Amino acid sequence: MDVSWEQSVTDSINAIYLLFSAYLVFVMQLGFAMLCAGSVRAKNAMNIMLTNVVDAVVGSISFYLFGFAFAYGNASNSNPFIGTNLFALTNIPNDSYDYGFFLYQWAFAIAVAGITSGSIAERTQFSAYLVFSFFLSGFVYPVVVHWVWSSDGWLSPSSSELFFGSGAIDFAGSGVVHLIGGIAGFWGSFLEGPRVGRFDAFGKPVPMRGHNATLVVLGTFLLWFGWFGFNPGSFDKILVPYPSTTNQGNWTSVGRTAVTTTLAGSTAGIVTLFSRRLLVGHWDALDVCNGVLGGFVAITSGCSVVEPWAAILCGFVSSWVLIGLNILALKLKYDDPLEATQLHGGCGAWGLIFTGLFAKEQFVIEAYNSGDIGVKRPYGLLLGGGWGLLGAQVIEILAIVSWVSVTMGPLFYVLHKLGTLRISIDEEVAGLDISSHGGYAYAPQEENHPRFYADYLRIQDDRS
Amino acid sequence: MDVSWEQSVTDSINAIYLLFSAYLVFVMQLGFAMLCAGSVRAKNAMNIMLTNVVDAVVGSISFYLFGFAFAYGNASNSNPFIGTNLFALTNIPNDSYDYGFFLYQWAFAIAVAGITSGSIAERTQFSAYLVFSFFLSGFVYPVVVHWVWSSDGWLSPSSSELFFGSGAIDFAGSGVVHLIGGIAGFWGSFLEGPRVGRFDAFGKPVPMRGHNATLVVLGTFLLWFGWFGFNPGSFDKILVPYPSTTNQGNWTSVGRTAVTTTLAGSTAGIVTLFSRRLLVGHWDALDVCNGVLGGFVAITSGCSVVEPWAAILCGFVSSWVLIGLNILALKLKYDDPLEATQLHGGCGAWGLIFTGLFAKEQFVIEAYNSGDIGVKRPYGLLLGGGWGLLGAQVIEILAIVSWVSVTMGPLFYVLHKLGTLRISIDEEVAGLDISSHGGYAYAPQEENHPRFYADYLRIQDDRS
Amino acid sequence: MDVSWEQSVTDSINAIYLLFSAYLVFVMQLGFAMLCAGSVRAKNAMNIMLTNVVDAVVGSISFYLFGFAFAYGNASNSNPFIGTNLFALTNIPNDSYDYGFFLYQWAFAIAVAGITSGSIAERTQFSAYLVFSFFLSGFVYPVVVHWVWSSDGWLSPSSSELFFGSGAIDFAGSGVVHLIGGIAGFWGSFLEGPRVGRFDAFGKPVPMRGHNATLVVLGTFLLWFGWFGFNPGSFDKILVPYPSTTNQGNWTSVGRTAVTTTLAGSTAGIVTLFSRRLLVGHWDALDVCNGVLGGFVAITSGCSVVEPWAAILCGFVSSWVLIGLNILALKLKYDDPLEATQLHGGCGAWGLIFTGLFAKEQFVIEAYNSGDIGVKRPYGLLLGGGWGLLGAQVIEILAIVSWVSVTMGPLFYVLHKLGTLRISIDEEVAGLDISSHGGYAYAPQEENHPRFYADYLRIQDDRS
Repeated sequence: MDVSWEQSVTDSINAIYLLFSAYLVFVMQLGFAMLCAGSVRAKNAMNIMLTNVVDAVVGSISFYLFGFAFAYGNASNSNPFIGTNLFALTNIPNDSYDYGFFLYQWAFAIAVAGITSGSIAERTQFSAYLVFSFFLSGFVYPVVVHWVWSSDGWLSPSSSELFFGSGAIDFAGSGVVHLIGGIAGFWGSFLEGPRVGRFDAFGKPVPMRGHNATLVVLGTFLLWFGWFGFNPGSFDKILVPYPSTTNQGNWTSVGRTAVTTTLAGSTAGIVTLFSRRLLVGHWDALDVCNGVLGGFVAITSGCSVVEPWAAILCGFVSSWVLIGLNILALKLKYDDPLEATQLHGGCGAWGLIFTGLFAKEQFVIEAYNSGDIGVKRPYGLLLGGGWGLLGAQVIEILAIVSWVSVTMGPLFYVLHKLGTLRISIDEEVAGLDISSHGGYAYAPQEENHPRFYADYLRIQDDRS
Repeated sequence: MDVSWEQSVTDSINAIYLLFSAYLVFVMQLGFAMLCAGSVRAKNAMNIMLTNVVDAVVGSISFYLFGFAFAYGNASNSNPFIGTNLFALTNIPNDSYDYGFFLYQWAFAIAVAGITSGSIAERTQFSAYLVFSFFLSGFVYPVVVHWVWSSDGWLSPSSSELFFGSGAIDFAGSGVVHLIGGIAGFWGSFLEGPRVGRFDAFGKPVPMRGHNATLVVLGTFLLWFGWFGFNPGSFDKILVPYPSTTNQGNWTSVGRTAVTTTLAGSTAGIVTLFSRRLLVGHWDALDVCNGVLGGFVAITSGCSVVEPWAAILCGFVSSWVLIGLNILALKLKYDDPLEATQLHGGCGAWGLIFTGLFAKEQFVIEAYNSGDIGVKRPYGLLLGGGWGLLGAQVIEILAIVSWVSVTMGPLFYVLHKLGTLRISIDEEVAGLDISSHGGYAYAPQEENHPRFYADYLRIQDDRS
Repeated sequence: MDVSWEQSVTDSINAIYLLFSAYLVFVMQLGFAMLCAGSVRAKNAMNIMLTNVVDAVVGSISFYLFGFAFAYGNASNSNPFIGTNLFALTNIPNDSYDYGFFLYQWAFAIAVAGITSGSIAERTQFSAYLVFSFFLSGFVYPVVVHWVWSSDGWLSPSSSELFFGSGAIDFAGSGVVHLIGGIAGFWGSFLEGPRVGRFDAFGKPVPMRGHNATLVVLGTFLLWFGWFGFNPGSFDKILVPYPSTTNQGNWTSVGRTAVTTTLAGSTAGIVTLFSRRLLVGHWDALDVCNGVLGGFVAITSGCSVVEPWAAILCGFVSSWVLIGLNILALKLKYDDPLEATQLHGGCGAWGLIFTGLFAKEQFVIEAYNSGDIGVKRPYGLLLGGGWGLLGAQVIEILAIVSWVSVTMGPLFYVLHKLGTLRISIDEEVAGLDISSHGGYAYAPQEENHPRFYADYLRIQDDRS
């Protein structure tokens, strides 16, 4: 038996799994672009799509140059707060990381700013967007990744130095990705205030429908498709057998993770549909879409360590978290065009709590200790695993909310005070596309402007 | 050599293959949503997208709770008609099934009701939709799956107890998926009658163009993409070497299945384009789209067991089946907005016949007996394989048509008699979106309603 | 150790990798359809989508019947100019090729004509399109594939018979795919002349905005997604260990190729955004889209053999190549609605030069000699690899430009002289959709034509 052949087979299998998962996660960028475009008014469609495209291209360069290093730097002089080597892919590939891992993490990094862009949609200056997007995805986000997902990180589930004897379990990032994006969005949206006309003179909300529900459905399904890379892909390696079983390994858990993700999203979609039917009086496809996404956000933390029945419970509650926060937002006159704070922030935080309640011992050990049954570690409180894990989850929530607030809050505040955050009211009424981006996203069927017909007649004369 | 390592490698490879195929099949749900949305009038776009989203989320829960159990339950007290264990994924994973297999089958299950939704589009009450969708994907469809695809099933190709010495070959479901959806759609559409204005006072058909051809093309290409998961993915395992060859195995057949699928769809698309050009007088992109889909539906049964040249023949005929049935439907004043009965029903039935005529002995043994050359079994009639297989195919058609008719027919009839099937004529003229779903899918560019400008002026006053 | 088991594992892994890459490349056909549709005026949307769909279905049949044979025929009587066996997949699978390889190459072949369709959009007769598309993808393109990618080809990197001691390195086809499409498009567009109204009476360009920027963004992201199949997939096999390393092999290079692709596209997108901001005065999402695509086209040749930092340089320059050629095109009154000549032709040529300058010795040997460190061959001029490779790259450019010009040029000229190339001016003003394809792509929300309401009243009478 050729040992290096075994290694090559293992590396190839894991590379296919991780790379194609990365490609799926990348599709989420498209899904988000379509979801956002459809959810805003036609006059701002170009603007929000530009922000999504810019997230991707700027994020590529910043994550290559330093974001990945901050997140996964693992030099001997490394620290639990931030990585300090691997800038510009120096020394990649090495024994820990290959290019595929970088690509997978890149696809995550570019997603974060997109969440925030939804909160501040339809009223933010593009230059301000460039600044915050670069700062958020290049620094704020990678630092949290280092805390939670790097083996050096102080919140890492592979470290047990936290006071409760457990690191946090945030498998694919309910906190690391979604809560960060939602909290950053909150500060931006809070400082900017509601869109013009969102609340009438008496403070009553005025519906502002997005311009294209088809794009919202398209975006939601693409996000669902991409989530199959986001959650099941987060095992990083699929060829990891569990020692105490006959035919199980990461491949089993990867499949179960796809199932829990699907069930949580589906449940949340149904519950939101029926709840809103009772509240509002009609069946709305957009309610299902938002519900599904809320369920996905919530299950993202615990997807790999809970039973399918628990995922259904997770989705059920996340639907009500979303509905409740949306009602609260209206009461507080908080205007978040994509409901990003409520959905990614609220359901993200719920997801971390949920994991602390329902994580199953066997699955935790399989996902984080390769199924080594000798390991003892805290797991879900309601399954008898003690308070350790739940405590760590709460600490992650507090840490993320604090960190994002002390970094992004001041940044948005300075931009706000400099007058470079929000567009002028005239621009807002006219729409960002015509004021900043050279024209509307859509051109009408006819183009009867005089010059056109003059040319047409001229050419006809020439030919006759 | 470590036997368990061999097993882990095999399981990992097969898991990647099956899971990513499942993700592709899931994309078909999106493809169908876009195809349907583009094919109806703008005033009903929200409604039909809602039905597609609901198929997915409701189907997830029902297939988890009992659909999968009805389909693949294989307890010792099992029977050839319906499965009786594995409810709510109890005892999954086991030696027969892992989570990936469930996910793959789930993606199939949610597709069936979508086909039917096309037949009854633009005039069906949403509450009726909820009832039939739940019943169809939760019971009617899984039972047929048990017959044909479960090893216990009375029509299973691995059983030879049928009178002709052969089970039916319906590899990826021309019958199990498409014929079911098409026949169910027929009963719904037949009982509801044509849309208002579809035929004029003299019975002459009035064209009712969908509102957005771009969405139709988008949907068709997404369905094509997804079909690469649907057909080649149906081998379930890719790492199955064929004993009598040097370097061939399921991986060879998987590739060939992708090729036959492509050739059948492409041929049907071309033939439909040119045939319709002769009939109607212009080149229509939507004809190619419909033709391609008809070819895919037809090849789905035999994709794994026929030569590429036969796939071209399959596509050729399926184009004419589709065109012929569409002409017939107009004559009979049968109005199916998506042509689902003609396309999925008609081409699905043709596909089953085609397989009975052209299935190649070697490929049948490879696909169904892992290439064991000692096996003798019926194959395509025209290739000298006798009447056995063709007989089994005809029995599958008759069984499906009968089963769907005796289950879905009465269901639609009861809903019809209760007055809960079709919407009122006023709602139909106004459109489902405004009457049932809280508003249109599309919002115009300008929003010049008075309150908006009042607010705008007020805010300007505040700031000045 | 069972040797045949090793072979089966290897074949399965490589088949998964190649098949799913092929599926991704197929998505590019959808991406191109959406990009093109969004970039033309609404009145021609149906026409250009039809051409994209037709490229796929006609290309399937022609590539099956003879295109693949011309490209990869490797009979003993084969020659360096054109393949002469494997027609209609005869003798497939064999030791060299399995069905998956055919499918992968098919997905490339159908893409070429789509590029050209962009150049001649909005003014070309559909029958002319059928002729040139069939000729281009069935003959002109496969011949160049044979030259560059077949091991027999006179430009093949595995042959060293060229005067410079090196074949050309065009890994995924900056030249073979994009330059061909761009040059063919040039001849078509040059002979047809600009669209009516594109330049006013004084020769000043009149902006002709596409009708839907959302579709352009959708198409661009889908193309990006597909490019992950196009470039990293072009290794054909992923399980190829490099002998002189411990844990590296094609899987490492596949990942790095995805990274270089991403970085080149992202850089080009950013640079185009900022450059155009300086030139034109606003931030335009479509500039990012075009820039990204230009970067991808350029890196396609060298993606597997350059360092990530070099990919950034590649993208930087390709942005300026695109901007410069677009300025030049306006000056010369050359009207290419999709900028296909500038983008695919110009950036494609730059990509070949770039590879000749920056290809790294180690990576060239890994990609083309399976990492055999005993091999000596030319590599990038600026890295000390001599003039050999750059010379071969220039020869590829000259060969492709000449070959496409002497084949497609006369074809377009004959069509032009026969009056079957361009549509009449009246048709052009009215739009191709209404004149040739039976109606517009979009139907308005309301359908208040008299007959409809007459029927409505009649039915109401019937029911009352």
